[in-house]
Amino acid sequence: MSHQISVFDEAIERLNLYAAKANIDPQTAKMLLHPMATLETHIAVRMDNGELRYFPAYRCRYNDTLGPTKGGVRFHPSVTEDEVKALALWMSIKCAALGLPFGGGKGGVQVDPKALSKLELERLSRGYIRSMSGFIGPDIDIPAPDVYTNERIMGWMDNEYRMLFPAVGQSTVTGKPVALGGTLGRQDATGRGTYLCAMQLARQLNLEPDKITVAVQGFGNGGYHCARLLSEAGFCIVAVSDSKGGILSNSGLDIPSIHQFK
Amino acid sequence: MSHQISVFDEAIERLNLYAAKANIDPQTAKMLLHPMATLETHIAVRMDNGELRYFPAYRCRYNDTLGPTKGGVRFHPSVTEDEVKALALWMSIKCAALGLPFGGGKGGVQVDPKALSKLELERLSRGYIRSMSGFIGPDIDIPAPDVYTNERIMGWMDNEYRMLFPAVGQSTVTGKPVALGGTLGRQDATGRGTYLCAMQLARQLNLEPDKITVAVQGFGNGGYHCARLLSEAGFCIVAVSDSKGGILSNSGLDIPSIHQFK
Amino acid sequence: MSHQISVFDEAIERLNLYAAKANIDPQTAKMLLHPMATLETHIAVRMDNGELRYFPAYRCRYNDTLGPTKGGVRFHPSVTEDEVKALALWMSIKCAALGLPFGGGKGGVQVDPKALSKLELERLSRGYIRSMSGFIGPDIDIPAPDVYTNERIMGWMDNEYRMLFPAVGQSTVTGKPVALGGTLGRQDATGRGTYLCAMQLARQLNLEPDKITVAVQGFGNGGYHCARLLSEAGFCIVAVSDSKGGILSNSGLDIPSIHQFK
Amino acid sequence: MSHQISVFDEAIERLNLYAAKANIDPQTAKMLLHPMATLETHIAVRMDNGELRYFPAYRCRYNDTLGPTKGGVRFHPSVTEDEVKALALWMSIKCAALGLPFGGGKGGVQVDPKALSKLELERLSRGYIRSMSGFIGPDIDIPAPDVYTNERIMGWMDNEYRMLFPAVGQSTVTGKPVALGGTLGRQDATGRGTYLCAMQLARQLNLEPDKITVAVQGFGNGGYHCARLLSEAGFCIVAVSDSKGGILSNSGLDIPSIHQFK
Amino acid sequence: MSHQISVFDEAIERLNLYAAKANIDPQTAKMLLHPMATLETHIAVRMDNGELRYFPAYRCRYNDTLGPTKGGVRFHPSVTEDEVKALALWMSIKCAALGLPFGGGKGGVQVDPKALSKLELERLSRGYIRSMSGFIGPDIDIPAPDVYTNERIMGWMDNEYRMLFPAVGQSTVTGKPVALGGTLGRQDATGRGTYLCAMQLARQLNLEPDKITVAVQGFGNGGYHCARLLSEAGFCIVAVSDSKGGILSNSGLDIPSIHQFK
Amino acid sequence: MSHQISVFDEAIERLNLYAAKANIDPQTAKMLLHPMATLETHIAVRMDNGELRYFPAYRCRYNDTLGPTKGGVRFHPSVTEDEVKALALWMSIKCAALGLPFGGGKGGVQVDPKALSKLELERLSRGYIRSMSGFIGPDIDIPAPDVYTNERIMGWMDNEYRMLFPAVGQSTVTGKPVALGGTLGRQDATGRGTYLCAMQLARQLNLEPDKITVAVQGFGNGGYHCARLLSEAGFCIVAVSDSKGGILSNSGLDIPSIHQFK
Repeated sequence: MSHQISVFDEAIERLNLYAAKANIDPQTAKMLLHPMATLETHIAVRMDNGELRYFPAYRCRYNDTLGPTKGGVRFHPSVTEDEVKALALWMSIKCAALGLPFGGGKGGVQVDPKALSKLELERLSRGYIRSMSGFIGPDIDIPAPDVYTNERIMGWMDNEYRMLFPAVGQSTVTGKPVALGGTLGRQDATGRGTYLCAMQLARQLNLEPDKITVAVQGFGNGGYHCARLLSEAGFCIVAVSDSKGGILSNSGLDIPSIHQFK
Repeated sequence: MSHQISVFDEAIERLNLYAAKANIDPQTAKMLLHPMATLETHIAVRMDNGELRYFPAYRCRYNDTLGPTKGGVRFHPSVTEDEVKALALWMSIKCAALGLPFGGGKGGVQVDPKALSKLELERLSRGYIRSMSGFIGPDIDIPAPDVYTNERIMGWMDNEYRMLFPAVGQSTVTGKPVALGGTLGRQDATGRGTYLCAMQLARQLNLEPDKITVAVQGFGNGGYHCARLLSEAGFCIVAVSDSKGGILSNSGLDIPSIHQFK
Repeated sequence: MSHQISVFDEAIERLNLYAAKANIDPQTAKMLLHPMATLETHIAVRMDNGELRYFPAYRCRYNDTLGPTKGGVRFHPSVTEDEVKALALWMSIKCAALGLPFGGGKGGVQVDPKALSKLELERLSRGYIRSMSGFIGPDIDIPAPDVYTNERIMGWMDNEYRMLFPAVGQSTVTGKPVALGGTLGRQDATGRGTYLCAMQLARQLNLEPDKITVAVQGFGNGGYHCARLLSEAGFCIVAVSDSKGGILSNSGLDIPSIHQFK
Repeated sequence: MSHQISVFDEAIERLNLYAAKANIDPQTAKMLLHPMATLETHIAVRMDNGELRYFPAYRCRYNDTLGPTKGGVRFHPSVTEDEVKALALWMSIKCAALGLPFGGGKGGVQVDPKALSKLELERLSRGYIRSMSGFIGPDIDIPAPDVYTNERIMGWMDNEYRMLFPAVGQSTVTGKPVALGGTLGRQDATGRGTYLCAMQLARQLNLEPDKITVAVQGFGNGGYHCARLLSEAGFCIVAVSDSKGGILSNSGLDIPSIHQFK
Repeated sequence: MSHQISVFDEAIERLNLYAAKANIDPQTAKMLLHPMATLETHIAVRMDNGELRYFPAYRCRYNDTLGPTKGGVRFHPSVTEDEVKALALWMSIKCAALGLPFGGGKGGVQVDPKALSKLELERLSRGYIRSMSGFIGPDIDIPAPDVYTNERIMGWMDNEYRMLFPAVGQSTVTGKPVALGGTLGRQDATGRGTYLCAMQLARQLNLEPDKITVAVQGFGNGGYHCARLLSEAGFCIVAVSDSKGGILSNSGLDIPSIHQFK
Repeated sequence: MSHQISVFDEAIERLNLYAAKANIDPQTAKMLLHPMATLETHIAVRMDNGELRYFPAYRCRYNDTLGPTKGGVRFHPSVTEDEVKALALWMSIKCAALGLPFGGGKGGVQVDPKALSKLELERLSRGYIRSMSGFIGPDIDIPAPDVYTNERIMGWMDNEYRMLFPAVGQSTVTGKPVALGGTLGRQDATGRGTYLCAMQLARQLNLEPDKITVAVQGFGNGGYHCARLLSEAGFCIVAVSDSKGGILSNSGLDIPSIHQFK
């Protein structure tokens, strides 16, 4: 448990450090030290074999001064309340830094989603929304996909929310399929963001893309699109890796082939 | 932190022990191992000196199978999320054991209420209801007084809830002043309960009250009324104590005088 | 207008006088000097001849410390906002004096109900509920019949409220027909109250009913039942009067006959 | 289809007949000729084999003049919208005849419940509540058990409603298990009602119970308890039957044994 | 009745035919075979002569996968539940085919609107919204004008909805007058759609508008604007007709004059 | 009191005058003669010295035919219910004249805001929202700043409303700080409006700005920005004044210096 606690404590330490560097008034900085509200629930899921299992689930609404809180929901065995709080803090900072009308939130379920059948995963996803139903909403807190949650899962979540609150409509969950009201461009948004930052950096440092070699750590949805876009812009992607291994080629990799192979 | 965790772990251990002794089906017992929902917030209170302070506050709705959850809110520096969960578990058991149509809940604020002014205490009490507002209600979860929360504090809480939800009325908070819709007999209910158990035990063991000596540990609202009623029934109260000290007399104590003196 | 203002000013003056006599702490008395909330609306009614007319309508929720406010709605040409406030103040005092869990309220429409057709009266009654809909409710404010409003009118009002808020049911309006959920005994409750007071007074003063002569001013619903009950108890009713005239008989009146005649 | 239509048409015909016999004013009688609101939905149920099946489901709120509508939900292959309307009409009459503060309603699902697994039945029951959720509620319409719906099914329904509307609590569905807030005496209420009528009839006709022979058609929950109570009161039960067969004994049957055997 | 049933059965037959032609997966096609929810009510309208009449009214929410359902309300003596379902099915297909974020719905009242006075029509229109109030809303189901319902009727409906749900505002009903928040261009939208299709067809078939003769069947709001726009674009309108008759001229008709004449 | 009444009476008189001049149909004009709804409350504020004071507060929703009502809240000792009604009437006319989808409203508190401490002012502002909470909202009535209410006050009001109705978000109060969701350009909008009217007038009258002298009465937020913009456009500002005095210079004033000085 000591390990998990330090995740949030470390985040607060870093926040204090930067607040001091930026000469932020301590009374103001203090407002960011305490998560506004954190809800812990246990989701009961009927497994395919008839057994009832309980999964710890969390949602943290860190700070909503700038607008409804917003942040992903991750499904991972290592999820803890402490990690969710730390990530919600960083979401608050990220939204504020970009001038978005959103506060920061985050959620997660302590589960190995790869060990669940598709129907079990659906029941867990719907159960997450049920157990958090009074805590989320278009003007309260807006869940999004995160580690091991994808379009289909967000579609289930959105559908469950609509059943609970028919009058609210399809604005509570982002990252759902485009056909069900999802956002165009959502698919490669994370990768494109990294790519745009790299482009901007190259411009500021006056570097030629084709003289820069790039290694991409993590070749999931974000990493793939980032690598693809950088590659299309002339950068030389020499290495990519994911949780199962990596591939290296000094003369540059063919990203679409690797993606297809994967 | 390790200390706090063990409070709830110990409670679960004891629950498992008794469930095994009582031959309760493991699938059923499992339902009691996980608190349904626990909300952690931080209440911002403007102190009389202008400073803004944040107090960690908790509310656990352990299990609502039998009805809306019910349980006290304590104001104490040693309150932790873990303790609140353990107490909410015991409330679930207590309500079920008595056949009441209630589930178990509990809440608390990590604060030394004696260090607050009356106005600061009012702001904290109202802040508790504000930060928990979507989590409580007459058919959801019903707060009650507990350690260092009294009639006046429950009156503030009830008033705050009525402002937030005028259509719900006065049924959300128990233990408020009788004039504001509180329950008759609430004042000495806890002490009277202990007294009735003692009477029943004496009857079953065929003991004469006046031959039994009694020591009362904790001479707050519960302890005083228990001592008073036992004394009136002929028991011999030889000792009472509270957080500041104790008093002993082998020939029996005059409870009303001690109470008045205190 | 100056006239109307004095109705409420007079009421406050009287309140201050009694509060001083009763040695009530000025800070507490102050709480009763200001009506909590008063809503003025204009009800648009389509008359039978096609014309649209607007009627000023009021509802005052004077003080809800003791519970939801409660009070009648009168339909009368002389109704003013000021009068409604004054009557709502006295309702607050009356409920408190009897230890009822209700605060005081009152309402009215400036209209001569006798000049309306039955369908116009229905539209006005339903319009009253529509225009006050967010201001009333079983745990907020509970209208009742008053001068020139009766069972049928309350039935329309209750029906209108149920259409607006189907989930709330039949608890918002009292004084409706018993078949629609009205209260048994409501019919003669006002008159019976006066009768019970008279009986109590006679008992305390050691008077024989049949030696007391009674004059009843106002022979509407309240006055008739009071006269009937006093008469049945042996009191000698020598005079009754209403807005159109009066009748006197030193040897006592036969109340049922007079009622039937009327 | 023509068959189903006639169920309701027949009911209306009979109603008109009795209204005429009872000299009820035609304008009033007319109010009972049209069901206020009937909702038809299709419940999607994921079968154990992965297939998605749709079941037609109905709920009729016939007339709510006297209070929230009330009536059972039946699960049967022969359920039609027409039949549900007819039964809801009779519920309106029954509640009115007894002076209960309820209007009449009824619901049903066109399904052979015996062909479903227990988990499929749970999903169907919960789906019924979901698809009717805005149409029912403690002050709107209150479902109860009926043909082939029992305590367990009502428990699922109540649980589903509480998830959708946590603030409403346990008052929406009757006939649930006593431990979950069900009504004491619900189990044998239908049978006891019939038994009480029989007793009253015997008394009025001046008959000796032990000289009366009784045949019970339908030996489900209602029939069994009726037979049991009549038998205990001395009536001679000579025959009982259900959908699978019957049993006859001129010397009288031992009801408890037959029930146990079944 | 058999007639009406076949309207929907025919629609389903045609749907199955096209689904098979388009090679749509049967499990997916199945989702379109059952209307999600259909509400039948009877609207009580007080006629100008004092009589109370009941009109059958329907609203079908066929499928809301793509967003809130949307569709017109028709007032016509031939309206049946079956027809409403069939039209709601086609609305679902139409919205999906155009990629609109709407599902399909439809409504209707079985009434001859030409036989009602203006005030009776207003009461009927408002009654429709009252009886469907929990079934519609900006994110649930959005009524629009259809056969024999116009701007004024939609204005009444919108006004009634705002009285019932003041917090929802003016987004529930489309087709209301522009001054009350209606859509610019709504007036000729239906006709303009047909006109645009005709223009597109002419372009694809390489036809000169002035060499094409056009006959317009139905010269209501849709037909008139279509004829007007086609005429302005050079098409030769040789015939128009409505429920009362038709007019033919091989040399082309002057649409504005005909419209004015009508 | 007679004085205050005339404010509204005068407004109605002027309205009747213009309606007659504009040949508006009397039945239509009549609709503007009666404020739809006016709420009077008394806000209890705990002063810094511990005393409880009550401030009369008003909100008038004059007419919402064109959309949710909209209008400022003023804090001034001379605020009366009558003035608030008159101003709400003019807001209705102003919104309609500009074709905005808003009706007219207005509010105010009878208080000298300069006599309150910052914390007292915060409590009063929050109290205003609490006491009007059921009367306002994004689709009902939208408060804005007015005399002696500013960005900070609107920020408190918005924050209070979000606490009461978390699901509604930040759309209820306008004029709040941009960082909290306020409107860009709000700061100088009032002044810019006047400036644009002046520019338009000059253009129509064919006047050269630099040949026009301008005197600005009231040098608060509106007056300052108007003077600044006119001055930047070449107009010659010869005089400005506020509640404390004025300044005159025939050769023109340097507006920024005066603003800074103030």
